[in-house]
Amino acid sequence: MLALRFDGTTPAVVEIDPPEPGPGEARVRVRRAGVCSTDLEIVKGYMGFVGTLGHELVGEVLEHPDASWVGRRVGAEINLACGRCARCAAGLGRHCADRTVMGILGKDGCFAEQITLPVENLHPIPDGVPDDLAVFVEPLAAAFEILEQLRIDPSWRVAVLGDGKLGSLVTMVLAHTGADLTLIGRHAHKLAKLASLARTVEADAVIDGGFDLVVEATGSPEGFARARGLLRPRGTLVLKSTFFGDTAVDLAPLVIDEITLVGSRCGPFSPAIRALADGRVDPSPLIEQTFALRDGSRALERASERGVAKVLLAP
Amino acid sequence: MLALRFDGTTPAVVEIDPPEPGPGEARVRVRRAGVCSTDLEIVKGYMGFVGTLGHELVGEVLEHPDASWVGRRVGAEINLACGRCARCAAGLGRHCADRTVMGILGKDGCFAEQITLPVENLHPIPDGVPDDLAVFVEPLAAAFEILEQLRIDPSWRVAVLGDGKLGSLVTMVLAHTGADLTLIGRHAHKLAKLASLARTVEADAVIDGGFDLVVEATGSPEGFARARGLLRPRGTLVLKSTFFGDTAVDLAPLVIDEITLVGSRCGPFSPAIRALADGRVDPSPLIEQTFALRDGSRALERASERGVAKVLLAP
Repeated sequence: MLALRFDGTTPAVVEIDPPEPGPGEARVRVRRAGVCSTDLEIVKGYMGFVGTLGHELVGEVLEHPDASWVGRRVGAEINLACGRCARCAAGLGRHCADRTVMGILGKDGCFAEQITLPVENLHPIPDGVPDDLAVFVEPLAAAFEILEQLRIDPSWRVAVLGDGKLGSLVTMVLAHTGADLTLIGRHAHKLAKLASLARTVEADAVIDGGFDLVVEATGSPEGFARARGLLRPRGTLVLKSTFFGDTAVDLAPLVIDEITLVGSRCGPFSPAIRALADGRVDPSPLIEQTFALRDGSRALERASERGVAKVLLAP
Repeated sequence: MLALRFDGTTPAVVEIDPPEPGPGEARVRVRRAGVCSTDLEIVKGYMGFVGTLGHELVGEVLEHPDASWVGRRVGAEINLACGRCARCAAGLGRHCADRTVMGILGKDGCFAEQITLPVENLHPIPDGVPDDLAVFVEPLAAAFEILEQLRIDPSWRVAVLGDGKLGSLVTMVLAHTGADLTLIGRHAHKLAKLASLARTVEADAVIDGGFDLVVEATGSPEGFARARGLLRPRGTLVLKSTFFGDTAVDLAPLVIDEITLVGSRCGPFSPAIRALADGRVDPSPLIEQTFALRDGSRALERASERGVAKVLLAP
């Protein structure tokens, strides 16, 4: 089968043997996969990952220990937990210390014709959700993670910093909280797509600060200081960006203004699937272009260009 | 009157005119004042403060718009809020943007024979609390601030990092939460004083991490990384230390492990006064030495020595 793999130097589409499902695993044919900024960080060296890239997919079950699953369309959680440790027992499988992570840590990803996955990672996708939207379940779950971690007061002024894929999905989710929502970004054409959900502001504009909550989703180290500057005392800064390297942070002002920082990563799949199924969240304006898997290297290049939204792969 | 002042270069005790109370202010004779690590940071340049140092005191009211207050012993909140802005109206006077801060920002402090203060900053001290304990109200309130900001689950494993004055007071407060409490510090004689309240561990010891909550109160930039390393995924790190300069922070692991950082500063006086009055918190083991105000420079030097606990001034 074809797979878009990273050897530590260059990503390339290569022919490899299909994986064989182990005990408790299913074999899934990948129908669509999505390119995430994390994939682009990985090919720069983030996480030191080597193998098949990709962790956003919708697929069709080809083999499953329970035959009733065969033929179903599924999304898949990216963290493969051990299922035996104290964290797993506490329901924190996404933080299992022995976990592997699809396309990120010790587990081949979904930029391939097939993938094997533990059956407990699979979530059925309702028939009404087309593949091109179902592929957003994983990043949309990451947006819902904010609601799993925080109570959002509907009277709050909330800012999302970054109009990229994740910032846009976060905006689509937070638009339902009732909060007074502002999206701050660098791309007029992206902001325009979300103008019905939030006040949209160009990143260079001078705006009133004093936000109760700011979600940092720029994917760049500079975003931290900007997000910090937008907060009121005792405000909350949600960190969504992962990137390489240290950031110089003056911790004293965080203490003086009693700021809360909340790191936020992968989220719950069920609310994301429900929001796609009932149309509360419609990521279709975020789709930039779909490439065949054999053109995977070009797809990564395209996804790296400034201002480009979600690039999809069709194996 | 005598006052221990900082001119931007060297702290010195000098003779100055007593301050005159303005409208809505009281004149307070300082009975005891405490030296805080923040004072020691200020004489290194922190906050760029120039004026009379000191922000921990117990005093006696000499003049007050309401004559019934004259003669009372009082503690005093250190933030002088404008009382008119939106933050003050929201009960966030400690974060008023126009505030001055006693001995820290634009307001002469309490290392003096007298100080003037807005009447709303004064809190009566019950008769049963001696001056040497009442002077701990302000830093003890800062310890209680953690309980104002967070719910502490009594099943949590909690670590306090730093056996200095603030870390010790935080330990005394958190010992009442029911949590499984560990104090980590560099000074065996300080740890020994708190061994009845918490498991005590030398800072160089290798210990199991996975704490649900860590309070960083070392006062040093190195404390952040150590505190971070002690947390479980989704754990909470309370930042209590203020110090000069940037700290290099790799933000990605905060996102991956979904850590929450909570900056924490000044706290509520009432619970601190109650805890001193009913003996739930007894800071007396933390008193190192009392100096006359005229020996204030020596008192600061003594407080700067490694391993020294609370130094008091008696004007």
